Amino acid sequence: MNRVGVIGYGYWGPNLVRNFQEAPEATVQVVCDKDPARLAVAQKRYPHLRLTRDAQDVFRDAAVDLVAVMTPISTHFDLAKAALEAGKHVLVAKPLTMSLDQAERLVALAEKHRRMLAVDHTFVYAPAVRTLREIVRRGDLGEIYYYDSTRVNLGLIQHDVNVIWDLAAHDVSILDFLFDDRPVSVAARGVSHVGAHETLAYLFVQFAGMLVAHIHVNWLAPQKVRMVLVGGSRKMIVYDDNEPSEKLKVYDRGVLLGKAVDRDTTLVQYRTGDMLAPQIPTTEALRIECEHLLDCIRQGTTPLTGGAHAVNVVRMLEAAQQSIRQGGQEVRL
Amino acid sequence: MNRVGVIGYGYWGPNLVRNFQEAPEATVQVVCDKDPARLAVAQKRYPHLRLTRDAQDVFRDAAVDLVAVMTPISTHFDLAKAALEAGKHVLVAKPLTMSLDQAERLVALAEKHRRMLAVDHTFVYAPAVRTLREIVRRGDLGEIYYYDSTRVNLGLIQHDVNVIWDLAAHDVSILDFLFDDRPVSVAARGVSHVGAHETLAYLFVQFAGMLVAHIHVNWLAPQKVRMVLVGGSRKMIVYDDNEPSEKLKVYDRGVLLGKAVDRDTTLVQYRTGDMLAPQIPTTEALRIECEHLLDCIRQGTTPLTGGAHAVNVVRMLEAAQQSIRQGGQEVRL
Amino acid sequence: MNRVGVIGYGYWGPNLVRNFQEAPEATVQVVCDKDPARLAVAQKRYPHLRLTRDAQDVFRDAAVDLVAVMTPISTHFDLAKAALEAGKHVLVAKPLTMSLDQAERLVALAEKHRRMLAVDHTFVYAPAVRTLREIVRRGDLGEIYYYDSTRVNLGLIQHDVNVIWDLAAHDVSILDFLFDDRPVSVAARGVSHVGAHETLAYLFVQFAGMLVAHIHVNWLAPQKVRMVLVGGSRKMIVYDDNEPSEKLKVYDRGVLLGKAVDRDTTLVQYRTGDMLAPQIPTTEALRIECEHLLDCIRQGTTPLTGGAHAVNVVRMLEAAQQSIRQGGQEVRL
Amino acid sequence: MNRVGVIGYGYWGPNLVRNFQEAPEATVQVVCDKDPARLAVAQKRYPHLRLTRDAQDVFRDAAVDLVAVMTPISTHFDLAKAALEAGKHVLVAKPLTMSLDQAERLVALAEKHRRMLAVDHTFVYAPAVRTLREIVRRGDLGEIYYYDSTRVNLGLIQHDVNVIWDLAAHDVSILDFLFDDRPVSVAARGVSHVGAHETLAYLFVQFAGMLVAHIHVNWLAPQKVRMVLVGGSRKMIVYDDNEPSEKLKVYDRGVLLGKAVDRDTTLVQYRTGDMLAPQIPTTEALRIECEHLLDCIRQGTTPLTGGAHAVNVVRMLEAAQQSIRQGGQEVRL
Repeated sequence: MNRVGVIGYGYWGPNLVRNFQEAPEATVQVVCDKDPARLAVAQKRYPHLRLTRDAQDVFRDAAVDLVAVMTPISTHFDLAKAALEAGKHVLVAKPLTMSLDQAERLVALAEKHRRMLAVDHTFVYAPAVRTLREIVRRGDLGEIYYYDSTRVNLGLIQHDVNVIWDLAAHDVSILDFLFDDRPVSVAARGVSHVGAHETLAYLFVQFAGMLVAHIHVNWLAPQKVRMVLVGGSRKMIVYDDNEPSEKLKVYDRGVLLGKAVDRDTTLVQYRTGDMLAPQIPTTEALRIECEHLLDCIRQGTTPLTGGAHAVNVVRMLEAAQQSIRQGGQEVRL
Repeated sequence: MNRVGVIGYGYWGPNLVRNFQEAPEATVQVVCDKDPARLAVAQKRYPHLRLTRDAQDVFRDAAVDLVAVMTPISTHFDLAKAALEAGKHVLVAKPLTMSLDQAERLVALAEKHRRMLAVDHTFVYAPAVRTLREIVRRGDLGEIYYYDSTRVNLGLIQHDVNVIWDLAAHDVSILDFLFDDRPVSVAARGVSHVGAHETLAYLFVQFAGMLVAHIHVNWLAPQKVRMVLVGGSRKMIVYDDNEPSEKLKVYDRGVLLGKAVDRDTTLVQYRTGDMLAPQIPTTEALRIECEHLLDCIRQGTTPLTGGAHAVNVVRMLEAAQQSIRQGGQEVRL
Repeated sequence: MNRVGVIGYGYWGPNLVRNFQEAPEATVQVVCDKDPARLAVAQKRYPHLRLTRDAQDVFRDAAVDLVAVMTPISTHFDLAKAALEAGKHVLVAKPLTMSLDQAERLVALAEKHRRMLAVDHTFVYAPAVRTLREIVRRGDLGEIYYYDSTRVNLGLIQHDVNVIWDLAAHDVSILDFLFDDRPVSVAARGVSHVGAHETLAYLFVQFAGMLVAHIHVNWLAPQKVRMVLVGGSRKMIVYDDNEPSEKLKVYDRGVLLGKAVDRDTTLVQYRTGDMLAPQIPTTEALRIECEHLLDCIRQGTTPLTGGAHAVNVVRMLEAAQQSIRQGGQEVRL
Repeated sequence: MNRVGVIGYGYWGPNLVRNFQEAPEATVQVVCDKDPARLAVAQKRYPHLRLTRDAQDVFRDAAVDLVAVMTPISTHFDLAKAALEAGKHVLVAKPLTMSLDQAERLVALAEKHRRMLAVDHTFVYAPAVRTLREIVRRGDLGEIYYYDSTRVNLGLIQHDVNVIWDLAAHDVSILDFLFDDRPVSVAARGVSHVGAHETLAYLFVQFAGMLVAHIHVNWLAPQKVRMVLVGGSRKMIVYDDNEPSEKLKVYDRGVLLGKAVDRDTTLVQYRTGDMLAPQIPTTEALRIECEHLLDCIRQGTTPLTGGAHAVNVVRMLEAAQQSIRQGGQEVRL
């Protein structure tokens, strides 16, 4: 039975509290937030919880063995560092830190203290993404051509980072999880329409093999869109995370360059077969994640979204940010 | 009553024949195609039509006063030039030519011969685009932030050009039609997955004012997507051309940077009001186009998709192509 | 080569003219309409056509061997009768006649004159319905429970019949085509919101076996809905004719009454497997129909939508009408 | 501060616990369930809760002043009766009881004991339904023609009642809430495909004025559909509860019987104007309901879903059940 301390009871923190509280192998010991109004909300829901406004209380609590840091990105490094140094396992909201240097230092610290360091890249645990990964890994798509994501909404504009660190972080994590092919460069362009940070950005990622990825993120869009296209030589997939069910549609479609059917167009030879929407479990991703992490602690194994994964994500985001600053120039990873 | 000669009875040509034939002020005089099988199709439909495999027959036909060139892009220049020199008005499939130089020479030739030169940029005549333009021009959106288009499908891969010249041509034409703000540069990246030409491309267009545009085109996508987002400071629009009705959705949404509601996030102050889908006429765009062009001939006026518009489109496409060749570098217009 | 005379160039007639004109084995000889404006439209499109305002001209034309009667239902009987008596094959717009008696007399007349009598129940030729039929006939659904159709729109209110004869006619035809199980009774309720005839109606059809069918039709609905659910013990189907592709979705779902999982509910044991959307050809149904009918004439065979099918449809519609008049009472067939 | 006892921690009970626990003016005192496994779930979530397997413990608990009965319908009467007799306010899962007689007896008992009796007809508190009601009450639709609901899914088949008491109960409640026009009769047909009770049913409700309502419910449908059409002489509404936002679409459409435009059809004169999707608050309906009920207790007022509403619903359901038993005959209310 792990005892969890949760720091940050804002937008996402309550979901961690609920899932750890309901997990068979854990219980929430203490919740920390600087804002008394948020603590009052926590207390109304869970009268049994210990509350504090001081993160040190969490680190000092000997009963706590896992700390979930669910605060703004700019605070991740200090809080995670303190938690590791206090001998706690640590789960950090995504992305891990604001720089690759910080991320690597935390990973080293976790290794030194032999504690789990994990990042809440929730999509890695989402049943749709796991099913997508299985399809990709089985080779059903043939040679994989592209991953194209549109992830936009009228969103919670964050004050310490731009839209890349918020929304593109999801796709970068998914890319790292789905494919063996490794990214070699990124080129990004971004625009700031409201506030100090980019609210709209486009990333183009080149991989070592044939794969390319494109990520479109926007905090000022009229509708919420969560649409990923994955194209391969044999099959193609639409992954629409807004769909309540049928999130994945696998199209038995491919093309062959045929001979010119007519002078206007070399009509590609389509294979347009059936579309299959595989059954996807409805388990909450965060539930799967919490149980996976508790399992890793118990068995001393590395989580799927452990240090290596977290570092890969931060490396890409940092490079994308640099590319934006350099006017869209390609940045090697 | 104009008498029309149509060159090219492949994929799109039959639509021109049908619309000119049914237009009150025109009739189709002759159809030309190199392929006897296509001519046989035309004859079965319209037994009264004169048919020929030789474009010269069209140019020489004194009764013909308007020639529609509906052939592959690489043939446009020669055919349009010959038609103009034969004293015909000319409508050319989009885009006008494969180079800016060719486009400007045709425009000059049309002026010299005092003949109409128009390009079949059909979307300019589409009721949804016209309604969108009215909304934009009325200032309903406030300051316009971005135009973002996804135009992908499992498509007719063309043998003489890449996907930009085929699909992005639509967006470039729409951009020229919608906004007063003028593009100043374009950066593009493209990948060729099948065949010799790019089948996937991304264009980022910077305008003189605040506007940016992004265009995503792909010939190897599992679904047909025709989705344009237009974001402004006061309202935002989703234009989904796949919708049978309700192609435009105008969201009364905007954001103001509020004070930090919570330390995690500066919650922007949303204005999320009603959504309005304006009634859009169901008239076929090509019908409107044909009647507009016949009107222009009658009155000696310049069509909406005349030389200037056509040149703007080709200039952008050529620059985008150059940017792809230069690895995504920004190309000034 | 059949020579076709088309009577009625209103809403649907032009589609028959186009398809017969383009069919390899036919040509349109003459078009008849009482309205000179409609004839002018036909002439502009097809200058080669012979036109007439008098249906007798069609019957007397020795070159014509197939007459398509595309006029209001109340005129079908007289026109089809005259055509058969003139020795023509006849295709009639759906449904065949306004009474079972008339329908049976036409069938007898066609047999007597050894001419084809067919009804334009187009859905029987629609690729989606044909694929649906194959799935049903293969037994994939297990025992078939129900057919439930919603077919509503803001529609062309007809002046001589109610919404049942217009819209429910489609479902009654599809039911006859899909299933071996035979209907034994119908109960219907209808309401007239505008005009003299019912604009909204609900039909409940009991079959000899386990199957029941329900048909909901409405001329005064805000959206066009064309949604059919077919439920079976092993699989279930959604047939949405508004979908551009993916018209059929086959759900690998069934239920078994399990033991009570909890006292509140006997949780049925769901089998919720994958969903498959079979590839459906995009050929126009009317094209398939025209070629099928020309084939039947050539070979002297009975069309799928011949007399027997047509009579089945009219029998059901007449019984439904009677049920409405009797306040929803069940009427035996 | 009300202290709530919740009986039944199965499918819906946890939502009541959560909402009452989080409501500012209430707290959950005790949770009762016969199933120890369910109690264990409650305890893991809320370690502070008192638990019991015996409902009498709840009634005897002097601190409890509001009892929420969230058990199968067949147990409602006895539990609600006992709670009222113990002097508690009572909220009962929908519908109130399995017979009109029982419902009226509970209402009388509540009056006698001067306690609140409310039913959890949640849709009455749903922001979409409230917005719909405002539109209806403002008279925007003109004369109201029909209410047509499709409410189907692959569902939790209940062991003590048929699909009418489960799903149609929602529409009957919504009808009572939306319209002043009163129902005068109902005719229903149902079929049992799995188990002892009807799993598919159709209800046709006649009102005193012009309104008719139709309700289609099915526990064995391949997709979840929650689609209501409301048609009026001036506007028409689509209410799709599956839509994440844009649940209501108000179509500025109506028809007038025009003169015959053509002999085939009296083309109704459409007014097809814009479609408006009003902004709808995203507050959880159950949250609104809980706060409304606590307010009613505090102020001694009658809840929107109090005894009168509950009785109206049960009266209709009982009549529908009787109609099914009588083969679809109209039953007067």
